[in-house]
Amino acid sequence: MRQAGRSLPEYHQVRGEGSILQAIAEPDRAAEISLQPVNRYGVDAAILFSDIMVPAHAIGFGVDIEPGVGPVCASPFSSSADLARVRPFEPSSDAPYVADTVKLLVDELKIPLIGFAGAPFTVASYLIEGRPSRNYERTKSLMYNEPKLWHELMQRLADVAIASLRSQIEAGASALQLFDSWAGALNEADYREFVFPHSNRVLQGCAEFGVPRIIFGVHTGELLSCFGELDAEVVGIDWRVPLDEATRRIGPNRAVQGNLDPTVLFGPWERIAQCADDVLRRGSSAPGHIFNLGHGVLPSHDPEVLTRLVEHVHAWSP
Amino acid sequence: MRQAGRSLPEYHQVRGEGSILQAIAEPDRAAEISLQPVNRYGVDAAILFSDIMVPAHAIGFGVDIEPGVGPVCASPFSSSADLARVRPFEPSSDAPYVADTVKLLVDELKIPLIGFAGAPFTVASYLIEGRPSRNYERTKSLMYNEPKLWHELMQRLADVAIASLRSQIEAGASALQLFDSWAGALNEADYREFVFPHSNRVLQGCAEFGVPRIIFGVHTGELLSCFGELDAEVVGIDWRVPLDEATRRIGPNRAVQGNLDPTVLFGPWERIAQCADDVLRRGSSAPGHIFNLGHGVLPSHDPEVLTRLVEHVHAWSP
Repeated sequence: MRQAGRSLPEYHQVRGEGSILQAIAEPDRAAEISLQPVNRYGVDAAILFSDIMVPAHAIGFGVDIEPGVGPVCASPFSSSADLARVRPFEPSSDAPYVADTVKLLVDELKIPLIGFAGAPFTVASYLIEGRPSRNYERTKSLMYNEPKLWHELMQRLADVAIASLRSQIEAGASALQLFDSWAGALNEADYREFVFPHSNRVLQGCAEFGVPRIIFGVHTGELLSCFGELDAEVVGIDWRVPLDEATRRIGPNRAVQGNLDPTVLFGPWERIAQCADDVLRRGSSAPGHIFNLGHGVLPSHDPEVLTRLVEHVHAWSP
Repeated sequence: MRQAGRSLPEYHQVRGEGSILQAIAEPDRAAEISLQPVNRYGVDAAILFSDIMVPAHAIGFGVDIEPGVGPVCASPFSSSADLARVRPFEPSSDAPYVADTVKLLVDELKIPLIGFAGAPFTVASYLIEGRPSRNYERTKSLMYNEPKLWHELMQRLADVAIASLRSQIEAGASALQLFDSWAGALNEADYREFVFPHSNRVLQGCAEFGVPRIIFGVHTGELLSCFGELDAEVVGIDWRVPLDEATRRIGPNRAVQGNLDPTVLFGPWERIAQCADDVLRRGSSAPGHIFNLGHGVLPSHDPEVLTRLVEHVHAWSP
């Protein structure tokens, strides 16, 4: 239940009004925030409190997270001159607080910690658009018109993601999730040509640790057969594709994660239970299923409902 | 090529800086704007210059179109008390300018004119959220928690769409398009339960005229088999699902419309031609294919490229 903290009163108390990047940069505070949903809900894994834009911020690209908006860049990436601004990411010197937070958490937790990174396409889209986008027109324009520059940028962002994930695993994270949140803006042909090799290199760059690797995006129904070819153990599924159909597209050798519609949690309990049961039933057609929401928790979600959902899933038997 | 006008200099000259709702309400101006892309590009059909929120605005719900944002409502729909604000739409007295524009256009045009309306779900989402939304949480919350109120609202919005479409056809439009732009926020089960019957009633309410009926939305890959059950002749497809696969999901008795990614038009011509050819080739597997973009034209599109694309498609042979 990614972003499960932001619906919690104890989160807002610890987070305060300051920048989220500042909160992430303080290991004690970031660890406390990571633990809050674990303590509250009794979930089976924790996810690091961080942001996919932390490395880009840490190497000085000029990224901020604007409240109510998302990642913004004062000076977006637009030409080869900007490549120099995407320099290699050195976790131990650029953002040592991430590994420090991981270490604090691993000492404290009795359950696995999931580390994560933004996939090259999704991070690139923020750097190029300069803010969250509906049509990704600058991103795709660069991709189509300057493929050489595109692949250079993607290679650099893949290196950034690899460095970030490796340092989290070395600090003790026992699974990783690669967020390609906006890959669903692409059709399969474009995904294969412009994105797949880079995301796959990130996943392969973490293979030697033997930890489960999860790939995730939304609107990815038409990309699932590609996702099934990525070097990952688990494919995250939003709420649009039922898990039995998702498994048909992905192939029989991947576990799935998801896929309850987060907004169902605003409905009456009978509907929530019914939808959760349906997800669990269909998920059993995959070789493995990690129950989860199909996207992040929303700030307006009711913690009582999330608690009840976790209890319901834990009590479920086929 | 819906919204093809907004990338044209002649459009901005005629439109000026005022409200789009004002421009729509002036038949001479709205007709001139509708004709601009026809004259410029030589496309095979015209689409009325209007907006899916015109009827809701005309019955006094309190809707405006904010430049750069989209439809906004100062006082969104939130309870049964708001039902009275969604009164029946009487095209001839509430918005006579729409039929007047259609008549002017039909007199002028040598090609068919497509009329259109917003589908109940998409219009409801604007009325309930009060502005464009990413998660549709208020919409889905009302849908799940107050199904009776939801269906009452949808019935009223279906009646509004029927009245609007019938008046456009009676004024001379020779095809209709029902825009359910945001239906792809729903999974198939929710679409069937909460939306399908209402959209289908709109389509059936225009059946007697014998004009082609087109249903369209984005992110609808998982809804295509439902769309194939709607009482429509044509299913619009965004750029994510290739047309041969779309036809497999829809079934063999529907024509398709679409599905070139609008952002491909920012790329080099060789790629545009290649992608257009692929769309045309795959579209030939359906019983009929109307070549189009997979979504609207963007303001930043280059009219020269659109001209060349139309010529290319007209010259294409299998």
